[in-house]
Amino acid sequence: MNALAAQETGRIEAFSDGVFAIAITLLILEIRIPPVDVPLGPALLRLWPSYLAFLISFLTIGVMWINHHRLFTLIRRANDALLGLNLLLLLGITFVPFPTAVLAQHITQSSARTAAIFYSATFVVIAIFFNVLWRVVLAQGMLGANAEEQMVHGITRQYMFGPLYYLVATIVAIFSPLGSVAINLALAIFFAIPARRFHVDHP
Amino acid sequence: MNALAAQETGRIEAFSDGVFAIAITLLILEIRIPPVDVPLGPALLRLWPSYLAFLISFLTIGVMWINHHRLFTLIRRANDALLGLNLLLLLGITFVPFPTAVLAQHITQSSARTAAIFYSATFVVIAIFFNVLWRVVLAQGMLGANAEEQMVHGITRQYMFGPLYYLVATIVAIFSPLGSVAINLALAIFFAIPARRFHVDHP
Amino acid sequence: MNALAAQETGRIEAFSDGVFAIAITLLILEIRIPPVDVPLGPALLRLWPSYLAFLISFLTIGVMWINHHRLFTLIRRANDALLGLNLLLLLGITFVPFPTAVLAQHITQSSARTAAIFYSATFVVIAIFFNVLWRVVLAQGMLGANAEEQMVHGITRQYMFGPLYYLVATIVAIFSPLGSVAINLALAIFFAIPARRFHVDHP
Amino acid sequence: MNALAAQETGRIEAFSDGVFAIAITLLILEIRIPPVDVPLGPALLRLWPSYLAFLISFLTIGVMWINHHRLFTLIRRANDALLGLNLLLLLGITFVPFPTAVLAQHITQSSARTAAIFYSATFVVIAIFFNVLWRVVLAQGMLGANAEEQMVHGITRQYMFGPLYYLVATIVAIFSPLGSVAINLALAIFFAIPARRFHVDHP
Repeated sequence: MNALAAQETGRIEAFSDGVFAIAITLLILEIRIPPVDVPLGPALLRLWPSYLAFLISFLTIGVMWINHHRLFTLIRRANDALLGLNLLLLLGITFVPFPTAVLAQHITQSSARTAAIFYSATFVVIAIFFNVLWRVVLAQGMLGANAEEQMVHGITRQYMFGPLYYLVATIVAIFSPLGSVAINLALAIFFAIPARRFHVDHP
Repeated sequence: MNALAAQETGRIEAFSDGVFAIAITLLILEIRIPPVDVPLGPALLRLWPSYLAFLISFLTIGVMWINHHRLFTLIRRANDALLGLNLLLLLGITFVPFPTAVLAQHITQSSARTAAIFYSATFVVIAIFFNVLWRVVLAQGMLGANAEEQMVHGITRQYMFGPLYYLVATIVAIFSPLGSVAINLALAIFFAIPARRFHVDHP
Repeated sequence: MNALAAQETGRIEAFSDGVFAIAITLLILEIRIPPVDVPLGPALLRLWPSYLAFLISFLTIGVMWINHHRLFTLIRRANDALLGLNLLLLLGITFVPFPTAVLAQHITQSSARTAAIFYSATFVVIAIFFNVLWRVVLAQGMLGANAEEQMVHGITRQYMFGPLYYLVATIVAIFSPLGSVAINLALAIFFAIPARRFHVDHP
Repeated sequence: MNALAAQETGRIEAFSDGVFAIAITLLILEIRIPPVDVPLGPALLRLWPSYLAFLISFLTIGVMWINHHRLFTLIRRANDALLGLNLLLLLGITFVPFPTAVLAQHITQSSARTAAIFYSATFVVIAIFFNVLWRVVLAQGMLGANAEEQMVHGITRQYMFGPLYYLVATIVAIFSPLGSVAINLALAIFFAIPARRFHVDHP
């Protein structure tokens, strides 16, 4: 373990906050301006898949930022493993604008199924990265004294099923691309609920 | 209410500052470089709608940042509702580059009316988000002891009419797209004036 | 003057740092990837105007950040005028990627003259914004006690001639676009020199 | 040496963190969305060079951020030379998205060799900038008291060979573009290893 790295928790957060803020803002660049030679009103309405993909990806990245932030409020020590796993997690986050644009372009086409699978599968991978990071934090005792058992327990429960939920969205995409998109929207709202509500008291 | 989240005011501000800074800087990417096969001088002049849209959106986002910042100077506690409402507000801010580009491309076309309505309507929605956030802050007693009644009163008065002013700009767009654009410019300057000037002393 | 705004110096700097960092990084997006159907080596070499424009704009924005930063180290109070003038200055900074791309595309064309005038004129305007901001800081007594007279004097001398130097670059562009570009490069290096070296002791 | 600049270490880091975070996030914009008139699945698979280039550049910039960060944890004083050299280093970092996009577009073409040389050569230059910055820090005694000799020694050893390693990757690119890309991936992982492991105790 690295005494130097241990001081770096604040820095990792600041850098991560920057990456989250940029990734969430770049999403808008993927919406294409309607050309001037078609009626603008209907053209703006026809862009609904872009708005929908923008909305879901914005909420998902936003809620992932809130969760990333909650995790790091509990973490008091950092080491090289955390630094590396956090970089992997950010790799997943910065990738999101690409499947978002693919979904927006293809959800109304015959390729909707592939686009929706690709979109949900991206979140499966990110949810796995979140899980691995959290388990390494637990295994290597990186939590601060302020981490209440109730909170820790709740996060473990909420995250454990994250990859499974997004896997369900991926499988649903095979039968119903739009159904899969609706599940992704619901999951963004689900993960916005603070983890402590998922704690079940042992009598 | 969440003791953990209560410490997070500084973080929400830092993340929000990042999103505002990126959204305001991305605006320039929407101005298209003139091709090399037309005279450059006239081509640069013909881009005036892009410069105008860039100017107004820059000032509007900049002034919204100043206002967001003033609000959070007063707020001392955060909770999950604030976190969610702030995310909705940022959703509105990051959307701005899109209607800005639509306005720039279409204001000199027959589609000017639709473009100007779309542009102003975006700010109606953002102004509503600002209002809701401020009212939740008041209703849930999240203000710090440093919040002078005069300032709070002024903000309430200034914000109450925000959505109405932008609604007027939206309606004007039906008859005069450029008139609507001028109102948006005036509103950016209006909201730059500190709220305390809108306080009316009760005798 | 605004007691609240007075606390905001740190925030203005953080927001400004974000805008500078994003504007300087967006410059690279303006360099176009060579298509796959032409020999890549010569195509990469033919992009020298893009590299040159990227280099000069990067250095100029970088040095403007250093200067912005030096100014705010001296400023201890903020008011609404400073907030507004700083927003205008950032407006100029975020605009830079556009004339940079215009210069890169047109410097080898018959439109080189117009492109070089447009590029240098942008910096004339930014230099004027820097001057106005500095003079308002001086006139309204916003400097902290740590501001040595020598430093203040040096900045005033260095900035006074800033708009003139860039005006010279703009005029030279009429006769020699590339000569004008060389002056811009020299000016970036000139403004990197700390202002205190421009202080002349009065005997 | 500049007393004012000496206080600026934190600021340089914050600005640099911003540039690193933006450069690493912009990489995704270079991956092109498949058009709607070709089968989406195979089209997404054919984009493997884009994913590979994204992955390597993301890891390389991420690890360079970690190293930049480690360096500045040791540096306690700043001067104008450090400010300038750091700006040059950031110039290299912000340039990375361009050779990344060139590599992604050309690695499957007859121009693969040129693209791979260009990509690796960019990292040779950045590695040289890192070396120069570190040697100036050592030569001008800018390290803080917390800098253990072991750490300093390890960094010197690890960095000394950085440009050479990337030069090898550049030369390998002449014979095997993909082999060169593999070396770049290995080097990102190599530089993620903390420098102190490269310290050899003198008996």
